[in-house]
Amino acid sequence: MLKDELLKVKIAQKDLELLSKDDRNKILSNIAIALNENKESILKSNEIDIKNAKASGLSNAMIERLTLNEKRINDLIESTNSLITLPDYVGQLIERIKRPNGLIIDKIMVPFGVIAIIFESRPNVSVDIASLCLKTANACVLKGGKEAINTNKELVRIMKNAIKDIVNPDVIYLVESTDRETTNELITLKNYIDLLIPRGSKGLINYVVSNAKIPYIETGAGNCHLYVEKEADLNMALNIAVNAKYQRPSVCNAIENILVDEDIAPSFLPMLYNKFKELNIEMRGCEKTLKYIDVLKATDEDFYTEYNDYIVSIKVVDGIKEAIEHINIHSTKHSETIITNNISQANKFLSLVDSACVYHNASTRFTDGGCFGFGAEIGISTQKLHARGPMGLKEIMSYKYKIYGNGEVR
Amino acid sequence: MLKDELLKVKIAQKDLELLSKDDRNKILSNIAIALNENKESILKSNEIDIKNAKASGLSNAMIERLTLNEKRINDLIESTNSLITLPDYVGQLIERIKRPNGLIIDKIMVPFGVIAIIFESRPNVSVDIASLCLKTANACVLKGGKEAINTNKELVRIMKNAIKDIVNPDVIYLVESTDRETTNELITLKNYIDLLIPRGSKGLINYVVSNAKIPYIETGAGNCHLYVEKEADLNMALNIAVNAKYQRPSVCNAIENILVDEDIAPSFLPMLYNKFKELNIEMRGCEKTLKYIDVLKATDEDFYTEYNDYIVSIKVVDGIKEAIEHINIHSTKHSETIITNNISQANKFLSLVDSACVYHNASTRFTDGGCFGFGAEIGISTQKLHARGPMGLKEIMSYKYKIYGNGEVR
Repeated sequence: MLKDELLKVKIAQKDLELLSKDDRNKILSNIAIALNENKESILKSNEIDIKNAKASGLSNAMIERLTLNEKRINDLIESTNSLITLPDYVGQLIERIKRPNGLIIDKIMVPFGVIAIIFESRPNVSVDIASLCLKTANACVLKGGKEAINTNKELVRIMKNAIKDIVNPDVIYLVESTDRETTNELITLKNYIDLLIPRGSKGLINYVVSNAKIPYIETGAGNCHLYVEKEADLNMALNIAVNAKYQRPSVCNAIENILVDEDIAPSFLPMLYNKFKELNIEMRGCEKTLKYIDVLKATDEDFYTEYNDYIVSIKVVDGIKEAIEHINIHSTKHSETIITNNISQANKFLSLVDSACVYHNASTRFTDGGCFGFGAEIGISTQKLHARGPMGLKEIMSYKYKIYGNGEVR
Repeated sequence: MLKDELLKVKIAQKDLELLSKDDRNKILSNIAIALNENKESILKSNEIDIKNAKASGLSNAMIERLTLNEKRINDLIESTNSLITLPDYVGQLIERIKRPNGLIIDKIMVPFGVIAIIFESRPNVSVDIASLCLKTANACVLKGGKEAINTNKELVRIMKNAIKDIVNPDVIYLVESTDRETTNELITLKNYIDLLIPRGSKGLINYVVSNAKIPYIETGAGNCHLYVEKEADLNMALNIAVNAKYQRPSVCNAIENILVDEDIAPSFLPMLYNKFKELNIEMRGCEKTLKYIDVLKATDEDFYTEYNDYIVSIKVVDGIKEAIEHINIHSTKHSETIITNNISQANKFLSLVDSACVYHNASTRFTDGGCFGFGAEIGISTQKLHARGPMGLKEIMSYKYKIYGNGEVR
């Protein structure tokens, strides 16, 4: 029974919370050492998954995501080790309130308890998430895709074995059944799971959001915009457009749309066209765009689409008001940038665009835990409840109030 | 169409956010003045609701909750005015991060946007919630019970009229249709509502939690516990038990359960029995309790029940471990207290009991925005995501990152 297994996870989490900071760091270093010692068995289990994936005709892109190699295992080891140097927030005092009646109210950072992650093909997520959770004294329930099940089993086996002398290894739990029914059950088990984080495709995230009966954080949908305001430095705008679209188009903080002020469209659009043509980026433009450059016509659907590919939609707007309105309707509230030398227009954009990260004269590609200095991240939140943008260690913690009295009654 | 109306609310919210702090305070003082000037029309509309309620056979308790009188209107005026002196958090800088590459990342407090509240019979909720939302630059969508519709309509009419010279009055919206279908639609309109807060009965809250497709905060379920540890000052324990159970049993921070350490059961239970008997509080005890005092037998169901009445369940436990386990299984994670002179046992309880507010030697009745010094509250959260315990002004705000660059690319 899934519930019985999760009850064990819940009970084990309290052990983890009571450990010292040093012991939690020791857990991480043990995991890093064990991953290093077990590279061979990890790669072997991964080979089985890859073989099965090929036999069942999975796409090359999917197989690429599924594949581990020595370099990727080393990255996992490095990122697990890097958490050791980050602060331990468990039990940290956020605020002390002294009341006139004598009560002392301490607001204290605490782990959520049990965090469940539902993810897809990439097996490295197992280790990344487990490390972040263990550092913050959260137990984790991992539900990966069926294509990575052998690799995930092996990674979890290694991690559990590495920590068992310090803490009850039930703090890491892999849901081995990979069918939809198990997911359905998992996302409704309110008394066993404190927080749910879906990581993966739009389909997965929408499914969780539509069916979960427990608190979740929506992550990763990135229909991001770059707006070239009429007082922009056009060379800077082009440089940022190239970076935000071309450097890594598959990620959520890449841009999908470029909005261009009508006043500068005649000068900027041809510059953009030449450069993007050279880079083989497909352009789809609104009616007005087509007056200046010879590209495909964008449909309304295009402006809602996260391509994750070398494709961009372009829209000519009659000013900042139209740009902001267009973004607030079409965006997934992830990241947007304005390029302009006019500070007051920039401030207007940063205030009125309702997205987690709003940039002035910089690439949206910086929306990332590492770039923000958080060290590691569990995902990029696109909701407003609890956490917004890159979620680091602090963002997977909650708080409680401890109140000290001396017999006070009301 | 509900969506069209909500789009107006969403657009109007941006006006509110751009107002100065002084203008937002002026809005509150205008509402307070208007309520004072329109007492007669408020009472008249309330009389219609009361007459209808009586005709349709609503319970006296329900009618009592529905009723406004001069005193209650004055309380509303006072609480609206009291918000004026509290801090304005809109746009407040939480943290500034300077990155080695030159980027400046400002983490800024922002309103959620549109907050929808679904509530039941008490019409004063309309004004309380609208004031809290307006202070924090949130627009509000109010969906009250059908029994209070005339009063709610009049209160909203007065508030909209009072603010219309300062801000677009669409920032307050009353959903006039009170049927279940409208609620069903409301709790799924993700693009129009940023946060949903159900306030009212367990039935209402469970309904919202089971059906909402947008972020919500669960509030107000209070199955609270008092644990009398073996080193307790028994007189203090009795005094706190009386306060927490008897002073106002209908509220969520009243206790429903008393756990008594076996070692002191022979001395404490008779003291409790005599006092509670005198106060006409019904006691229901576990098997062991019945050995010491002559009370009804508690069922397993009793320990999960929030009576909101002069009834208490009593359980004898064999020590702090059993007490903590019992609470973590049965509690709604609202408020619990331990009475003891043993500091290390108290710390254990405060760390391991997984509730929003955990007390040592004080009454659970203090879990309240006013008692915490927050000035006002929108509800008591019993979830761990975003906010826990009393939710004041800060807790109905989100944040965003404003990032300032100079052409930076990755």
